Amino acid sequence: MNDEPFPAASAPYHQLLGMTLEEWRDGFARVVLEAGPAHMNRSDIVHGGVILSMIDQAAGFCGLWCSVPGNIRKAVTIDLDCRFTGQTTAGRMVAEGKLVSRGRNIYFARTEVFNAAGEMVAFGSSTHRWRAGSETVEGSPGA
Amino acid sequence: MNDEPFPAASAPYHQLLGMTLEEWRDGFARVVLEAGPAHMNRSDIVHGGVILSMIDQAAGFCGLWCSVPGNIRKAVTIDLDCRFTGQTTAGRMVAEGKLVSRGRNIYFARTEVFNAAGEMVAFGSSTHRWRAGSETVEGSPGA
Amino acid sequence: MNDEPFPAASAPYHQLLGMTLEEWRDGFARVVLEAGPAHMNRSDIVHGGVILSMIDQAAGFCGLWCSVPGNIRKAVTIDLDCRFTGQTTAGRMVAEGKLVSRGRNIYFARTEVFNAAGEMVAFGSSTHRWRAGSETVEGSPGA
Amino acid sequence: MNDEPFPAASAPYHQLLGMTLEEWRDGFARVVLEAGPAHMNRSDIVHGGVILSMIDQAAGFCGLWCSVPGNIRKAVTIDLDCRFTGQTTAGRMVAEGKLVSRGRNIYFARTEVFNAAGEMVAFGSSTHRWRAGSETVEGSPGA
Repeated sequence: MNDEPFPAASAPYHQLLGMTLEEWRDGFARVVLEAGPAHMNRSDIVHGGVILSMIDQAAGFCGLWCSVPGNIRKAVTIDLDCRFTGQTTAGRMVAEGKLVSRGRNIYFARTEVFNAAGEMVAFGSSTHRWRAGSETVEGSPGA
Repeated sequence: MNDEPFPAASAPYHQLLGMTLEEWRDGFARVVLEAGPAHMNRSDIVHGGVILSMIDQAAGFCGLWCSVPGNIRKAVTIDLDCRFTGQTTAGRMVAEGKLVSRGRNIYFARTEVFNAAGEMVAFGSSTHRWRAGSETVEGSPGA
Repeated sequence: MNDEPFPAASAPYHQLLGMTLEEWRDGFARVVLEAGPAHMNRSDIVHGGVILSMIDQAAGFCGLWCSVPGNIRKAVTIDLDCRFTGQTTAGRMVAEGKLVSRGRNIYFARTEVFNAAGEMVAFGSSTHRWRAGSETVEGSPGA
Repeated sequence: MNDEPFPAASAPYHQLLGMTLEEWRDGFARVVLEAGPAHMNRSDIVHGGVILSMIDQAAGFCGLWCSVPGNIRKAVTIDLDCRFTGQTTAGRMVAEGKLVSRGRNIYFARTEVFNAAGEMVAFGSSTHRWRAGSETVEGSPGA
């Protein structure tokens, strides 16, 4: 278990969108966001970019949980895709990323996004690469 | 030519990200954004979600230009993918979406994103569906 | 239940690859293939095209099961993606496609492919459109 | 220029499908196939799996041209997506893969597929990883 404040708390873009990391363990990350007026497109539904941002974040984080307090892990997204299965109005959105498979320095994730009613509004797949020193669950002091 | 204010100007999410539609014609849309501190992830590079948002927007808009002043066209994104080919620090980002092919009510786009140095940092493909009344370039009064 | 011979049996490309539909119900399709020398690439592993073909087929079929004997349903694949999580040598391969979500005339599938050892070697997502008359589980006499 | 017989000639799966490498240079590969009865699905159009196989092959090869006669380069496909923009009946099909961008050991490709009438019937993007010794254009004796 990692008792450090979630890194999500300190990234400016997370603050801009109001995205927070709610649950985190090895191979899993749940990112939540309270959709409000600022997230809407011109049709008054949540912009696809909000959903894509949540997927990128939940997917990335599912491979970055760290077993050693104080250490961190980092990765870059290589590619990502998303299918939109519904539309979202205001309210709590949840994105859950799960690590599906991994190689030496690459991992694959699947992520589902749900609206306030609990309906799946999008699902995605993505490929990520760990930065050097981040491949194992222990992470590194300054990865 | 469409002299109306770009719809991009009025969508809350565009304002949140600072995304504007710079050039628009039938089959093409260029979306720009000045990346600053608010767009950064915890590694001080532009968050993937910013790039994905720009792709979704440029891709969507490339099929929505309207030849009749006052009319509009609308679409939903069915799915979208993106490959990240570089990283972006602060500065002007540009996303150019091009309509590749269309069916009766679906269109496909390819979008490229460039950083301030003009390097391509991502490219994506996407599938969109026109809402009823938006299939033709004339659009509708209240699509 | 549909007691008709599986349509898979009659498609020439299925025969070329040796691909058969092993299990089929509403929202699910399992396609199998015995990988042999003809399916190999120049590194003596199963060519990615075999896996992609199985995904396209299992994904398509998961939305085409028909409750009325003698009727059929048809669809076209709009787009498809695949991530390769392992490699496959000779032996029985299995692709399982599941319908994730559907709209009026579009459906989304997720498909997983397993090698003879039961390891997942690929997973994909795809978007399909039913042809007119194929949207409901009853299908049509000559869809 | 590489005067060696194309590796495509020797891969069993290429022979099964009748796929040949017609043009090859650094960053580009054209794969062709004469679509006949064996490539058809149950609607008498070319099966999506044929198109996906051609994309995987052209995309992979665009990063594998080798400047040193006798040397070779190898790669694996990490992931691939495809959008289908048209349908194909019998006749000559062409897939052209172009290397879009590369990192140290990963490359990205974009591939377009055309039917006998020269119409684009599909376009795809993909991510590939060079095997050790294959990262540079010179390749290796036994990569």
